[in-house]
Amino acid sequence: MLGRLNHVAIATRDAVKAAKIYGAAFGAQISEAVPLPEHGVTTVFATLPNTKIEFIEPLGEASPIAKFLERNADGGIHHVCYEVVDIITSRDTLVKEGARVLGDGVPKIGAHGKPVLFLHPKDFSGALVEIEQA
Amino acid sequence: MLGRLNHVAIATRDAVKAAKIYGAAFGAQISEAVPLPEHGVTTVFATLPNTKIEFIEPLGEASPIAKFLERNADGGIHHVCYEVVDIITSRDTLVKEGARVLGDGVPKIGAHGKPVLFLHPKDFSGALVEIEQA
Ligand SMILES: [Co+2]
Ligand SMILES: [Co+2]
Repeated sequence: MLGRLNHVAIATRDAVKAAKIYGAAFGAQISEAVPLPEHGVTTVFATLPNTKIEFIEPLGEASPIAKFLERNADGGIHHVCYEVVDIITSRDTLVKEGARVLGDGVPKIGAHGKPVLFLHPKDFSGALVEIEQA
Repeated sequence: MLGRLNHVAIATRDAVKAAKIYGAAFGAQISEAVPLPEHGVTTVFATLPNTKIEFIEPLGEASPIAKFLERNADGGIHHVCYEVVDIITSRDTLVKEGARVLGDGVPKIGAHGKPVLFLHPKDFSGALVEIEQA
């Protein structure tokens, strides 16, 4: 069973500004900016009743979203993150079904302190997919 | 208060194929393909516990997603849709806060039979935003 949509991540050069209109125009609850140097991003999130929107801006040299922002000057929807019960089981099923896992296939600790993997956009209609062990 | 994330829409040339890996690898519930000629798309959706992913493929001439697929050959995340209580109140607040509404600003009946508006991506970090009266 596919788990919850944990978040939609939107890459931008200014996460605080990006989140602000969600607060002003929608009354959404907006978090403080949280720098995550080990992930190369600063995060601000907008809380919705059923999920969250994460605004990510580059932090430091070699941010993983720097290239995306070169190609998409205005920013854009960067990835979607689904929760899974067991990331190893999910990874193995995904690979069996023909999906490619990015990197070395070993789950890393993600922005929420939980194991995550990223899947190849070409296998998901151009959408970068993150899976997170809930 | 910002409402629920109603759906994330993923544009693709083959919505059935795009949804299939969600069914096979994640065990997600996948709908039949639903042609919506008045919207120029065929839709397949994957149901998650808290929201849904909508796969949209072009239908007929002049599909509103044809250009997106020219620019993004593999497909990609096309828009996010938030629920609002009153679409006219939300539109007016959004405009007051500096967000641009696409088209003539008059809500149209969307793919789910409810009034919708689309907002300018430049005002939402490059993300195309749909609001739907829930
Ligand atoms: Co993420
Ligand atoms: Co939509």
